[in-house]
Amino acid sequence: MTASYSRNQACRLSHVPGWDLETDVVVVGFGAAGACASLEAVQAGAKVTLFEVTAGSGGTSAMSGGEMYVGGSGGTPIQRSAGFHDDTEDLYQYLLMAGGPNADADKVRAYADNSLGHFEWLQAQGVKYKNSFIPQRIVEPSTDDCLIWSGSEEAWPFVEQAKPCPRGHTPQWLGMGGGKYLMDVLAQRVDAAGVDVRYNARVLALIADDDGRVHGVVVKLDGRDCFVRARRGVILCAGGFVMNRDMVRRHAPHLLRSQHPIGTVDDGSGILLGQSVGGAAINMNEGFVTLPWYPPESLIKGIFVNERGQRFINEDCYHGRVSQHIIQQAGNRIFLLQDHETYAEPEFGKFSNITIAAAGETWAEVEKDLDLPQGSLLATVELYNRYAQEGTDPLFHKGAKWLKPLTTPPFVALDCRIDICFYSHFTLGGLDTLPTGEVLNADRQPVPGLYAAGRTACGLPRWGAGYSSGMSLADATYFGRQAGLRAASTAPVV
Amino acid sequence: MTASYSRNQACRLSHVPGWDLETDVVVVGFGAAGACASLEAVQAGAKVTLFEVTAGSGGTSAMSGGEMYVGGSGGTPIQRSAGFHDDTEDLYQYLLMAGGPNADADKVRAYADNSLGHFEWLQAQGVKYKNSFIPQRIVEPSTDDCLIWSGSEEAWPFVEQAKPCPRGHTPQWLGMGGGKYLMDVLAQRVDAAGVDVRYNARVLALIADDDGRVHGVVVKLDGRDCFVRARRGVILCAGGFVMNRDMVRRHAPHLLRSQHPIGTVDDGSGILLGQSVGGAAINMNEGFVTLPWYPPESLIKGIFVNERGQRFINEDCYHGRVSQHIIQQAGNRIFLLQDHETYAEPEFGKFSNITIAAAGETWAEVEKDLDLPQGSLLATVELYNRYAQEGTDPLFHKGAKWLKPLTTPPFVALDCRIDICFYSHFTLGGLDTLPTGEVLNADRQPVPGLYAAGRTACGLPRWGAGYSSGMSLADATYFGRQAGLRAASTAPVV
Repeated sequence: MTASYSRNQACRLSHVPGWDLETDVVVVGFGAAGACASLEAVQAGAKVTLFEVTAGSGGTSAMSGGEMYVGGSGGTPIQRSAGFHDDTEDLYQYLLMAGGPNADADKVRAYADNSLGHFEWLQAQGVKYKNSFIPQRIVEPSTDDCLIWSGSEEAWPFVEQAKPCPRGHTPQWLGMGGGKYLMDVLAQRVDAAGVDVRYNARVLALIADDDGRVHGVVVKLDGRDCFVRARRGVILCAGGFVMNRDMVRRHAPHLLRSQHPIGTVDDGSGILLGQSVGGAAINMNEGFVTLPWYPPESLIKGIFVNERGQRFINEDCYHGRVSQHIIQQAGNRIFLLQDHETYAEPEFGKFSNITIAAAGETWAEVEKDLDLPQGSLLATVELYNRYAQEGTDPLFHKGAKWLKPLTTPPFVALDCRIDICFYSHFTLGGLDTLPTGEVLNADRQPVPGLYAAGRTACGLPRWGAGYSSGMSLADATYFGRQAGLRAASTAPVV
Repeated sequence: MTASYSRNQACRLSHVPGWDLETDVVVVGFGAAGACASLEAVQAGAKVTLFEVTAGSGGTSAMSGGEMYVGGSGGTPIQRSAGFHDDTEDLYQYLLMAGGPNADADKVRAYADNSLGHFEWLQAQGVKYKNSFIPQRIVEPSTDDCLIWSGSEEAWPFVEQAKPCPRGHTPQWLGMGGGKYLMDVLAQRVDAAGVDVRYNARVLALIADDDGRVHGVVVKLDGRDCFVRARRGVILCAGGFVMNRDMVRRHAPHLLRSQHPIGTVDDGSGILLGQSVGGAAINMNEGFVTLPWYPPESLIKGIFVNERGQRFINEDCYHGRVSQHIIQQAGNRIFLLQDHETYAEPEFGKFSNITIAAAGETWAEVEKDLDLPQGSLLATVELYNRYAQEGTDPLFHKGAKWLKPLTTPPFVALDCRIDICFYSHFTLGGLDTLPTGEVLNADRQPVPGLYAAGRTACGLPRWGAGYSSGMSLADATYFGRQAGLRAASTAPVV
């Protein structure tokens, strides 16, 4: 064969010269989704071959904080120890709302009902969680503590639909970056379970027959194009497309306002492979964006304004929801206003490049220093202060515990401009799938033999304004498992 | 053959039992794009067969006002008679900006350079334009007049990048709805030119070979599945997907805030057919939304506020740009504030369901009647009035000619709420194509034998916040022509 293979065009089954390798289930990508898909498939008795394009396991999951968004069924032991009862319906409602206008109710239902059991499964794989809770609003523990508020649960409008509960479960790992620990544990399990893992293995194309059924992959192994038969299915867990800047430009150009992509490979290969056999990519314009502007949580008592001096969000939302609204503002200049009582140095200030734009003894001075239209900032602050004094925020419904009139000088405006600060982003669009992981075409009919999970699929997280830490890993691990189970239980094509 | 065919899966060439019909170029859809593609192809000597799913010509183009966005090269005779010189570079800059963050510079360049010639071509087909200009800001002439301001040319930020010029050219047709006239003229030409037009003909699937080249279509004719060979190419001009509510929900759910889709068939078939052979759909989340809130143009001197009493746009933008910003606001309540001097009954008020929400002798009364947070509306109006008095709008940069302090009682708030008023919408996502109409895959490589134009493709208009009346018809007709020319000049596959 001298043909060259493309992720954009399937190799036809009739063109396969012979199988170099035969297996039951091929998994593409060794992040959280691929690890869990492999584990379930191999434990169900299938022969599993996992192809990873890099030299090691972990993928983008290993870059994360390792939080897992978990709850429901009354709560995990850790939630219950911290005094929370987490009803399944509250988890369901929260995730449905967090999924935004295009939320997948079937996936949300499946996950809400089985989240607690999934948490137990993760622990059974060896992932350790300390029985502890950090009540303050943070981004990620720098200790080995577990439970945190990792979303907008207590904030309007979520709080009106679902009883709030902290659900971010961070592994027992000292310091930030628990995702690496999580992935190391899962990777050990994958090795121990007998999955045939091939590193430095780039999947070039899917192999499909004339009816569109997927039979395997063409993969570059040791410099050679190998034809690998997958008797029960191929599971794409190859990440999103954030590092494919051309795809981002064409599908989610607004994300480019944020200059820092978060990803490892994430070159869109998984999605493109799926599309090559008729899989439908959905929600491709959505992404997660964030600037870690808190902790300390006292900063939440300040208010954000755009370059017209207008507020635009209740500041007690999750940092990603706030940031999503920030990048929707016209103009790059964004300021976080604090008074003497609320101000504290942002914990990630240096990292995030948040500096002080102006300070003054009066808000008029600050307004002038910021060169905002005279009276614009003043009107906003006066209105906010007057209502905050009464303990309400009729404009944006910030929670009472965060309301304090910003009346104690000196006053300060933190500079959070979009083009200078560390706004990072990743993509939330991907292949449309059933809760079983089956990839769907544009008419929502399954593409036989093809599955996807993690950011190659469009899962629980699909709205930047609703994203909460731990949703991606929860989605990748839980629905990765479902894909593995479903593929393994499918009758083999022989 | 007992097979059933699907727009989601191409019929393989090897499965074709025999050709029921052979032609050079198949055109799918008889709107503006299909008509122009057919005309150019047949005039270039190709045998052209046009399949239209309904019983007549016109498509969604015939529902439009018939405006054509035209200019450049110094201006059309009508622009020049009205005293405007329209430089090609100004047209280029405007269209590039109007295309938004994902604008297609190649298409914009091709169109800007050839817009005047295209206008002459349309006239040569028999489309008549009166040499007249309506200087007032309107949506569409109710007379047979031609030239109007049909975009945001004079408004910030466009005015800073391109010298403004009116470019909406409406055919000489008494009354609104000139699109029907335009399409009748083009349809007559198509008939006269010898295009083989088949009505009530639903294209079920594309026919492609194992390398992905398109060879024809399977089409339902008189109740029978017919195999039609297209030796030189298939051109998809089957409209957008606005009437496929499931596709809208999955790709552009925010458009559903507007409850009135504008379309005829527009069931996404064209896009799905293209995707079935590897064509890439892009920009699927974008759409056009509008509420025709002016004329009369005196209303432009009012200000829009959301339910937090905040302004959000310079009101002198094109109605679609204003409406796009309206549907981005949280909450359904949107008000247009006027004073005694600026108020006049909205011309489309009854049609649009715009009513008076509150009136009063002071803005405080209006604020109270609207049940807005006390002081919120007042602060906005006071700031606006103070600057308007000076002839500036430092917040949103509304043009000086529209600035007037709203200080003459009685005051009125027009109710423009999103869930009650007539906000209509259509989609702006579609197949990625070259300026030649060639359909591209996800790696921007052409799919051999396949072309697309009109709303099946992603053309000049691709950003709701930049849309201008006449962009869709200009795009459909000009790039429809290019697709017809390119297909006809391709060596036939024999």
